[in-house]
Amino acid sequence: MGHKVRIQELPGIGKRYDAEAGAPGQRVSVVVRGNGIRDLYVFTSDSPDPDAVLELTEEQALRIGAILSGTFFTS
Amino acid sequence: MGHKVRIQELPGIGKRYDAEAGAPGQRVSVVVRGNGIRDLYVFTSDSPDPDAVLELTEEQALRIGAILSGTFFTS
Repeated sequence: MGHKVRIQELPGIGKRYDAEAGAPGQRVSVVVRGNGIRDLYVFTSDSPDPDAVLELTEEQALRIGAILSGTFFTS
Repeated sequence: MGHKVRIQELPGIGKRYDAEAGAPGQRVSVVVRGNGIRDLYVFTSDSPDPDAVLELTEEQALRIGAILSGTFFTS
Protein backbone atom coordinates (compact mmCIF):
# COMPACT_ATOMS: atom_id res chain seq x y z
CA MET A 1 0.00 0.00 0.00
CA GLY A 2 3.03 2.23 -0.55
CA HIS A 3 1.27 4.60 -2.96
CA LYS A 4 -1.60 5.22 -0.60
CA VAL A 5 0.69 6.72 2.02
CA ARG A 6 3.85 8.68 1.26
CA ILE A 7 6.32 8.96 4.11
CA GLN A 8 9.02 11.58 4.32
CA GLU A 9 11.67 12.16 6.96
CA LEU A 10 11.84 15.76 8.13
CA PRO A 11 15.28 15.99 9.71
CA GLY A 12 15.18 17.60 13.11
CA ILE A 13 11.39 17.69 13.11
CA GLY A 14 9.98 14.19 12.68
CA LYS A 15 8.10 12.29 10.01
CA ARG A 16 5.51 13.38 7.52
CA TYR A 17 2.76 11.07 6.27
CA ASP A 18 0.60 11.94 3.27
CA ALA A 19 -2.43 9.68 3.00
CA GLU A 20 -5.18 9.41 0.42
CA ALA A 21 -8.40 10.50 2.03
CA GLY A 22 -11.77 10.69 0.36
CA ALA A 23 -11.93 11.31 -3.37
CA PRO A 24 -8.92 11.55 -5.72
CA GLY A 25 -6.94 14.72 -5.05
CA GLN A 26 -8.09 14.89 -1.46
CA ARG A 27 -5.62 13.97 1.22
CA VAL A 28 -4.60 14.19 4.84
CA SER A 29 -1.08 15.05 5.85
CA VAL A 30 0.21 14.32 9.33
CA VAL A 31 3.53 15.54 10.69
CA VAL A 32 4.51 13.49 13.73
CA ARG A 33 7.01 15.51 15.67
CA GLY A 34 9.66 14.09 17.97
CA ASN A 35 7.85 15.51 20.99
CA GLY A 36 4.61 13.70 20.14
CA ILE A 37 2.72 16.67 18.71
CA ARG A 38 0.91 15.84 15.46
CA ASP A 39 0.18 18.56 12.93
CA LEU A 40 -2.86 17.59 10.89
CA TYR A 41 -3.39 19.16 7.45
CA VAL A 42 -6.57 18.44 5.52
CA PHE A 43 -6.75 19.04 1.78
CA THR A 44 -10.13 18.70 0.13
CA SER A 45 -8.79 19.58 -3.33
CA ASP A 46 -5.58 19.51 -5.36
CA SER A 47 -4.70 22.94 -4.01
CA PRO A 48 -1.36 23.12 -2.18
CA ASP A 49 -3.11 25.09 0.57
CA PRO A 50 -4.80 23.00 3.25
CA ASP A 51 -8.46 23.68 4.09
CA ALA A 52 -7.83 23.02 7.75
CA VAL A 53 -4.79 22.76 10.00
CA LEU A 54 -4.85 21.48 13.57
CA GLU A 55 -2.04 21.03 16.06
CA LEU A 56 -2.93 17.92 18.05
CA THR A 57 -1.43 16.88 21.34
CA GLU A 58 -0.34 13.25 21.45
CA GLU A 59 -3.36 12.46 23.65
CA GLN A 60 -5.78 14.09 21.21
CA ALA A 61 -4.16 12.30 18.27
CA LEU A 62 -4.40 8.90 19.99
CA ARG A 63 -8.07 9.52 20.76
CA ILE A 64 -8.96 10.57 17.22
CA GLY A 65 -6.87 7.70 15.86
CA ALA A 66 -8.91 5.27 17.95
CA ILE A 67 -12.19 6.80 16.76
CA LEU A 68 -11.13 6.43 13.12
CA SER A 69 -9.92 2.89 13.74
CA GLY A 70 -13.13 1.88 15.50
CA THR A 71 -11.28 1.08 18.73
CA PHE A 72 -12.48 3.98 20.84
CA PHE A 73 -14.38 2.87 23.90
CA THR A 74 -15.46 4.75 26.98
CA SER A 75 -15.09 3.17 30.38
CA MET B 1 -12.27 11.28 29.52
CA GLY B 2 -15.97 11.65 28.80
CA HIS B 3 -15.86 15.38 28.23
CA LYS B 4 -13.07 15.12 25.70
CA VAL B 5 -15.19 13.03 23.37
CA ARG B 6 -18.95 13.36 23.01
CA ILE B 7 -20.72 10.37 21.49
CA GLN B 8 -24.14 10.51 19.92
CA GLU B 9 -26.21 7.76 18.35
CA LEU B 10 -27.59 8.69 14.94
CA PRO B 11 -30.45 6.24 14.44
CA GLY B 12 -30.32 4.56 11.06
CA ILE B 13 -26.97 6.15 10.26
CA GLY B 14 -24.40 5.22 12.88
CA LYS B 15 -22.48 6.97 15.60
CA ARG B 16 -21.08 10.45 15.85
CA TYR B 17 -17.94 11.28 17.84
CA ASP B 18 -16.96 14.86 18.65
CA ALA B 19 -13.41 15.10 19.91
CA GLU B 20 -11.34 18.00 21.19
CA ALA B 21 -8.58 18.67 18.71
CA GLY B 22 -5.99 21.38 18.96
CA ALA B 23 -6.83 24.55 20.79
CA PRO B 24 -10.06 25.24 22.73
CA GLY B 25 -12.99 25.59 20.32
CA GLN B 26 -11.32 23.46 17.68
CA ARG B 27 -12.64 19.96 17.16
CA VAL B 28 -12.92 16.95 14.92
CA SER B 29 -16.21 15.24 14.35
CA VAL B 30 -16.39 11.71 12.95
CA VAL B 31 -19.58 10.00 11.84
CA VAL B 32 -19.01 6.25 11.65
CA ARG B 33 -21.70 4.86 9.40
CA GLY B 34 -23.01 1.33 9.55
CA ASN B 35 -21.37 0.55 6.21
CA GLY B 36 -17.91 1.50 7.47
CA ILE B 37 -17.71 4.89 5.76
CA ARG B 38 -16.38 7.64 8.06
CA ASP B 39 -17.33 11.25 7.50
CA LEU B 40 -14.64 13.51 8.90
CA TYR B 41 -15.48 17.11 9.81
CA VAL B 42 -12.73 19.46 10.91
CA PHE B 43 -13.56 22.66 12.79
CA THR B 44 -10.72 25.09 13.41
CA SER B 45 -12.96 27.59 15.19
CA ASP B 46 -16.18 27.79 17.17
CA SER B 47 -18.11 28.22 13.92
CA PRO B 48 -20.80 25.59 13.29
CA ASP B 49 -19.49 25.27 9.73
CA PRO B 50 -16.60 22.87 9.28
CA ASP B 51 -13.46 24.06 7.51
CA ALA B 52 -13.01 20.71 5.82
CA VAL B 53 -15.17 17.66 5.20
CA LEU B 54 -13.89 14.33 3.89
CA GLU B 55 -15.73 11.09 3.23
CA LEU B 56 -13.28 8.34 4.13
CA THR B 57 -13.55 4.71 3.13
CA GLU B 58 -13.03 2.29 6.00
CA GLU B 59 -9.58 1.44 4.61
CA GLN B 60 -8.56 5.10 4.45
CA ALA B 61 -9.88 5.72 7.96
CA LEU B 62 -7.95 2.76 9.39
CA ARG B 63 -4.78 3.96 7.70
CA ILE B 64 -5.11 7.54 8.97
CA GLY B 65 -6.09 6.20 12.40
CA ALA B 66 -2.88 4.18 12.49
CA ILE B 67 -0.79 7.19 11.45
CA LEU B 68 -2.30 9.31 14.23
CA SER B 69 -1.84 6.50 16.75
CA GLY B 70 1.78 5.93 15.75
CA THR B 71 1.10 2.35 14.68
CA PHE B 72 1.42 2.78 10.94
CA PHE B 73 4.17 0.64 9.47
CA THR B 74 5.01 -0.24 5.90
CA SER B 75 6.02 -3.76 5.02
